[in-house]
Amino acid sequence: MKERKISEAVIRRLPQYYRQLEELKETGNERISSSGLASIMGLNASQVRQDLNCFGGFGQQGYGYHVDTLFNEMAGILGINRLYKSIIVGAGNIGRALTGYEGFVQKGFKMEAIFDVDESIIGTKLGGVDVLHVDDMASFIKDNGIDIGIIAVGREKAREIANTMVESGIRGIWNFAPVSISVPIPIENVQLSDSLFVLSFRLQNR
Amino acid sequence: MKERKISEAVIRRLPQYYRQLEELKETGNERISSSGLASIMGLNASQVRQDLNCFGGFGQQGYGYHVDTLFNEMAGILGINRLYKSIIVGAGNIGRALTGYEGFVQKGFKMEAIFDVDESIIGTKLGGVDVLHVDDMASFIKDNGIDIGIIAVGREKAREIANTMVESGIRGIWNFAPVSISVPIPIENVQLSDSLFVLSFRLQNR
Repeated sequence: MKERKISEAVIRRLPQYYRQLEELKETGNERISSSGLASIMGLNASQVRQDLNCFGGFGQQGYGYHVDTLFNEMAGILGINRLYKSIIVGAGNIGRALTGYEGFVQKGFKMEAIFDVDESIIGTKLGGVDVLHVDDMASFIKDNGIDIGIIAVGREKAREIANTMVESGIRGIWNFAPVSISVPIPIENVQLSDSLFVLSFRLQNR
Repeated sequence: MKERKISEAVIRRLPQYYRQLEELKETGNERISSSGLASIMGLNASQVRQDLNCFGGFGQQGYGYHVDTLFNEMAGILGINRLYKSIIVGAGNIGRALTGYEGFVQKGFKMEAIFDVDESIIGTKLGGVDVLHVDDMASFIKDNGIDIGIIAVGREKAREIANTMVESGIRGIWNFAPVSISVPIPIENVQLSDSLFVLSFRLQNR
């Protein structure tokens, strides 16, 4: 898999496959055809087969896909259920929402600490997670082998924090600040307003 | 524009064009070539020209694009800066984060009310926005001609709220509950964990 270049569009669809398969599993489906899966995904059957062939196939002619097997394969491909030690920077509403989201812990993303500059909350816990001063972030990352840094601060501070994270040896960044950050490690820039603008486009073009 | 079918991939790129052009404008750039814009967007120049041709072009051979003009065109295409009356359901951390996000108001998305079931906050204000009981949502939507409903509740209640919104005549839904909802009006299902899973994929496949 590392040899071949998987297209960005396929990578972006993987979490959708994972979610749909999880739902199929939860609703008691044992198997699904590529056309059935395609219909749920809003794709066509040949695209589904092509997508899954990037990772080795998993389907059988005349049978389709075994839901449980494909779900587990997809989790493995995405690296879900491994332990990723994570930290959050910024204890505002978004930071708090992410701290309290149990779904992430269940999937292997364990919140080790949340960092802020507000002295009134440092030393307390939010959603069971210790609040520490942002000045201690770099050493915390190094000492605890943190994998993922989640940035939930305003746009002014976001780049500086990302750089400190990279220098401290973090492996990946999930950025919620409304600014695109480029760093030499994997980063996902979440642009919340993008989907709002798509919605606005659709309202205008119905 | 309504005649032609714009592909989903192009629609998803429009907010990125908007953001990049906004940044070019803010940093004092007057014009940009299609290859310059392509490089910022992570595309190739012919793809940029093709994307923008879906909406009429806007570029001039040998000159490129006038940043300010293209930025304004893109805002018009996306329907940004019109007034969209919006409500939020769910005064938890995500709901609060969205209420307090000034960027949305600046782009035309005005928060008219936030709905919850927690009696202790009903009648108060959050980020300057009135907190009302969710039982009053349907009549509020009708009486105030609300355009956009933002769902920030758990997955159990999300579908029911979406249906009530649709029945009350809302025009579009922005859903943050971790469940894909289908309704007969435009809806954007924000799946926050998708980008976390893409990050996890990249960490595993470096």
